[in-house]
Amino acid sequence: MKSDIQIAQEAKMLPIMEVAKKAGIPEESVELYGNYKAKLTHELFETVKDKKNGKLVLVTATNPTPAGEGKTTITVGLGQALCKLGQNAIIALREPSLGPCMGIKGGAAGGGYAQVVPMEDINLHFTGDIHAIGVANNLLASMIDNHIHQGNALNIDARTLTWKRCVDLNDRALRDIVVGLGGVLNGVPREDGFMITVASEIMAILCLATDLVDLKERIGNIIVGYTYEGNPVTARDLNAQGAMAAMLKDAIKPNLVQTLENTPVVMHGGPFANIAHGCNSVRATNLALKLGDVVVTEAGFGADLGAEKFFDIKCRKAGLKPDAVVLVTTIRALKYNGGVAKEDLKEENVEALTKGIANLQKHIENIHKFGVPVIVTLNQFITDTDAEIAYVKESCEALGCDFAPATVWEHGGEGGLQLAEKVMDVLENKTSNFHYLYEDELSIEEKIRTIATEIYGAANIHIEPNAKKAIAKINSLGLSHLPVCMAKNQYSLSDDPKALGRPEGFTTTIREIRISAGAGFIVALTGSVMTMPGLPKKPAAEAIDIDAKGTITGLF
Amino acid sequence: MKSDIQIAQEAKMLPIMEVAKKAGIPEESVELYGNYKAKLTHELFETVKDKKNGKLVLVTATNPTPAGEGKTTITVGLGQALCKLGQNAIIALREPSLGPCMGIKGGAAGGGYAQVVPMEDINLHFTGDIHAIGVANNLLASMIDNHIHQGNALNIDARTLTWKRCVDLNDRALRDIVVGLGGVLNGVPREDGFMITVASEIMAILCLATDLVDLKERIGNIIVGYTYEGNPVTARDLNAQGAMAAMLKDAIKPNLVQTLENTPVVMHGGPFANIAHGCNSVRATNLALKLGDVVVTEAGFGADLGAEKFFDIKCRKAGLKPDAVVLVTTIRALKYNGGVAKEDLKEENVEALTKGIANLQKHIENIHKFGVPVIVTLNQFITDTDAEIAYVKESCEALGCDFAPATVWEHGGEGGLQLAEKVMDVLENKTSNFHYLYEDELSIEEKIRTIATEIYGAANIHIEPNAKKAIAKINSLGLSHLPVCMAKNQYSLSDDPKALGRPEGFTTTIREIRISAGAGFIVALTGSVMTMPGLPKKPAAEAIDIDAKGTITGLF
Repeated sequence: MKSDIQIAQEAKMLPIMEVAKKAGIPEESVELYGNYKAKLTHELFETVKDKKNGKLVLVTATNPTPAGEGKTTITVGLGQALCKLGQNAIIALREPSLGPCMGIKGGAAGGGYAQVVPMEDINLHFTGDIHAIGVANNLLASMIDNHIHQGNALNIDARTLTWKRCVDLNDRALRDIVVGLGGVLNGVPREDGFMITVASEIMAILCLATDLVDLKERIGNIIVGYTYEGNPVTARDLNAQGAMAAMLKDAIKPNLVQTLENTPVVMHGGPFANIAHGCNSVRATNLALKLGDVVVTEAGFGADLGAEKFFDIKCRKAGLKPDAVVLVTTIRALKYNGGVAKEDLKEENVEALTKGIANLQKHIENIHKFGVPVIVTLNQFITDTDAEIAYVKESCEALGCDFAPATVWEHGGEGGLQLAEKVMDVLENKTSNFHYLYEDELSIEEKIRTIATEIYGAANIHIEPNAKKAIAKINSLGLSHLPVCMAKNQYSLSDDPKALGRPEGFTTTIREIRISAGAGFIVALTGSVMTMPGLPKKPAAEAIDIDAKGTITGLF
Repeated sequence: MKSDIQIAQEAKMLPIMEVAKKAGIPEESVELYGNYKAKLTHELFETVKDKKNGKLVLVTATNPTPAGEGKTTITVGLGQALCKLGQNAIIALREPSLGPCMGIKGGAAGGGYAQVVPMEDINLHFTGDIHAIGVANNLLASMIDNHIHQGNALNIDARTLTWKRCVDLNDRALRDIVVGLGGVLNGVPREDGFMITVASEIMAILCLATDLVDLKERIGNIIVGYTYEGNPVTARDLNAQGAMAAMLKDAIKPNLVQTLENTPVVMHGGPFANIAHGCNSVRATNLALKLGDVVVTEAGFGADLGAEKFFDIKCRKAGLKPDAVVLVTTIRALKYNGGVAKEDLKEENVEALTKGIANLQKHIENIHKFGVPVIVTLNQFITDTDAEIAYVKESCEALGCDFAPATVWEHGGEGGLQLAEKVMDVLENKTSNFHYLYEDELSIEEKIRTIATEIYGAANIHIEPNAKKAIAKINSLGLSHLPVCMAKNQYSLSDDPKALGRPEGFTTTIREIRISAGAGFIVALTGSVMTMPGLPKKPAAEAIDIDAKGTITGLF
C-alpha cells in the first residue's frame, strides 16, 4: 500500500495559475509562491464582492477516537466528488501546524486519494503564515518585557501577564520557564512559558479579521495582562499593533492550492479547536463563497466543539449562513463509543454499534438545534461489514437525516459520488433555518449553561470560584456580550474523556475563564488544556529525510 | 528629504521574471514568490555549471563608526553603476534579519538611491529563509530536551549543552532562562538561552553548504554538547539531520530580487559576522559568478573581520578567487579614527584625517597580504570638503591603490560611475594573486597568532586557560585543521573597541574557544559576544504601521 506522501508525490498537479483560472480568479489577483501555491490579493475581494454567495457545507464529526475519523479526508474527497458531478465546488480548509508533523500526529492535508497538494510544502512552512504569526506574537512578548525593563511606565504587574511566547514545534521544555535571568542587562526575571504558534490569539484574530484595518484593531485590543491597579494592558498601550499587523501583511491573504484531482482549495489559518474556535479564516470562507457555487469547509474536533463554535463564533462574527452539515463518523468510532476496546474495533459487533449510535444521534439532534439539515457519512474502512453499514443508515434515516457512505480515502472523488449526490439533493431540496444557539445579551454564565445543557447534554454546570471572579472582571470591562469559546476534551460530550457514547446527568465544571479580547471571545476551560505538545519517545522527525534532488520521505 | 522606504515604494520594479531573463535565467528555473521575489532552483545550477565564472569583487570597509559606513549602499550602487556602463553585473548580498528592524538598527537593503527592493518584504519575512532556519534550529533543541526527558539513552550531560534555541527578534529576556520547569511532564530543568536566529550555526551551515547532501552532512556534524564521558553528541546521534534538512529544502535555494535600477541581486543567507563568517551563501556567490560577468558582493563589519573571513573561510571552503576589493570608507569614519568626537564629525578637520588615515592604510596593507588589488572608495556626505577628499585620494595612491569617490546614496548608479570605471580598469589591467593567510595544517594557536599579528597588528596573543582546554579538546577530536573564525569587536583592530586608528604593541586575548563542527570552523572569542540583542527604550516597532491597502510606513 502506498503512503500518503507517495500518493501525493505522484499527483499530476496543475500549475496553480490554471487552478486559479478554473476558479474564476483573474491572473493579476494571484501571487505565486512557486508553481503550485499562491496567495490571493486584497484586490480580488473587491473584484468579487458583488457576486452572489455559493452554498456553504460544513463537515464535522462525532466524538473522535484517538486515531481521528478522517474529517479532512472526507472534506477533500467530497470537494473532489462534487467537481466530478460537474459542480463548481471549492474547498476551504485550515492550514496545518508544522510542530505535530515532527511529533506523532503527522500532517493535516487529508489522506489516501483525498489529499491537498503539494503535501510536503503544506505540512512544512507552506507560504509562511504560521511563522509570521509566531514572530508577531513574539514581538509583542519582547515589547512587554522591554517595557518593564525600561522602567515600566505603564505599571504592569508582571505576575498577571498572560501573553506567552510561541514556537511552531512540540517542545515541552518550554511550557514553564523563567526568563530575564543573568543580571540587570537581561531584563526582569519572571515566570513565563511558550505555546505552540497555532494556539496564539494572533492565529484566532487572523482567522476572524475581515481586513487589514480590522486585523490591526483586534490586535490593538489584545489584553496582555494588568497593571498593579488592576486595569487591563493592551497591545495598543504598547504601540505594538502597527508593527504586528505589518508583519501579517501577507499572512492575511488566503492561500490557493489544489487537491489530487485539481479541485481548488483555499487554505488559510488554523487556530486551536479548544482555546480558540478551530476553523479556517473568515476571509478564506468568504472568498470561497464568492468563487464557488458550493463551498465545503471543516471545523475542528467533534461537532460538540467544532460545529458549535463554527456556528456560534465564526458564523456570528462573519454573518455566515451554513446550508448543510455533513456529519462524519466511522463504524470504529461508533463501536468505540459503544464500549469496544481499541484493539477489538476491527471485529463485527452490531450490538456495540447499537449502543455507540447514541453518540451520533446526539450530534444529529444538536445540529438540528441550529436549524441546519444534516447528511451523515461513513468514512468507510475495509473491516466495516454490510450489516454494520446498513444499521447506521437506518438509524440516520429514522432521525430524518440523509445518509451516504464514502470511500474517498481509497478511491478519491469517485468514492464520494454517492455522498456528493446526497449533498446536492439536500442543498436543492431542503432549507436551512440557521440560527445561533444563544444571543449576545445572555450573561456569560447563561451562555455556558446553554451550551453545556443543550449541546453536551449536561444536567447542570458548576463554575469554580476563580472562574467566577474572572467572569466578574469581564463583566466590569464591558465585554460580557462576547460569545463563549468552550475548551473541553474532544473525546466525550462531558468533561470526562472516558464517558463515551451519550452521557447524561453529569455536571460540566468550568475551572478557568480567559478573555481573548482581540479575537473577541471568552474562553471557558473545563479542565487543563495543553497549549504546548511534547515529542514522543521516537519523534516522527527521526524518520524524515530528503535526498539530493529535494524529494522528502517519512513525512506523513 | 525622502526616507528610504518612500524611495523604495516609488521604485519602478520590473516583474522578477524579467529580471531573471536579463540575468540569463531560464523561466523554468524561477520559482516566483509574488511578482517581485523569486527562488532559483537546483536545476539552474546544473544548467549553468559549465559556464566560465565572472569576475568577483568584494566590498569591505575600514573599521566602522557606530553609525556604519554604508557598505551595502556602496555594493548596491556599484552594481547599478556597472550596469549603467553596459556591464553584465550581478550583486550577491546577505538577507537581513527581521529582529533589528524592530529595534534600533533598521533594515539592511542599502539606502537612498542604492537599495534592493521590495524593501518591506526583504526586511520582514522575505521568502521565509530565516524562519525556516529558526525552526530547524529549534527542532534540534526540542529533540535534545526530549531525548533527556525520555531516558537520556545517549547519557548527555545537560550542563555541557551548547545548542541554544533562537528567535528572529531582539529579546533580551530570553538570553538567560531556565527551561523544563513545572514537574515531571515538562522535561528536565536546566539553564538555557535563546540567540537571534542569524546567530544560529544553521545559518552558517546554510551559507557554506554546496548542495542538499552537503547541507545534511554538515547538520549531522553539529556538536550540541557532550556525554558524561566527555564524548561529543551530534545532531546525527539524535537522528535530527534528515528532518532539519527537509525543513531547509526551500531555504537553500538562492533568492532573486532587484535594485531600484533593476540590477539583478542574488540575496541569500546572512550569518553573524562575529561568531560566524558574515557573508552571503556560497551557493548565491557561485550562481552569480555563472550568471554575471562581474559579481559584486559584501562581507560583514570592517575588513579585519569581514574580508579576512571572506578570504580564509568562505573562499577556502568554496574554492573562490576574488579579483578585486573595494574598500569603503567615509571622511567621518577616518576623522573618528583620528580622535574626533562623534558630534564634531561634520566639521572640516584635515589634521584628524591625517591621523585617522592610518586605519585605512592598515586595511589596504592587509588586503594586499592576500594578493588582491584594492580600490578605495569614499561613501560621500554633503559635509565632506574638497580638501578632505583630495587628501584621502593622495594617501591611497601613495600606497599603490586606486581611488574613486561615490555618491550612490544620493544619485544611485549615476553616482557610482567613477568607481565602476576604476573597478573595470583594475579588473582588466591588474592581476589578483589571491592566496589564504594561513594553511590548514597550522595549529589552532598559530592560526590565531597569524590573524592577530598580521591583520590586527598585535604584538602577541594570550590564550586564557579555559580556551586552551577547549583547543586541546578540538585537537583530540581531530578537528584542528579547520579555519579559525575570530569574534572580535568591530570598532577597533585590537580587542579594545576604544583603541581607534592603528593601534600597535597590543596583545589579543582569546577568552573562549567554540567549535562549529557543522559549519566547519573554530570560533575564537576575544571578549563576550552578544548573540541576542535587546530592544531600545523606544523600539522602532512602535513607529511601524500599515494602512488598509497594505502600505507600510515607519520601516527604515
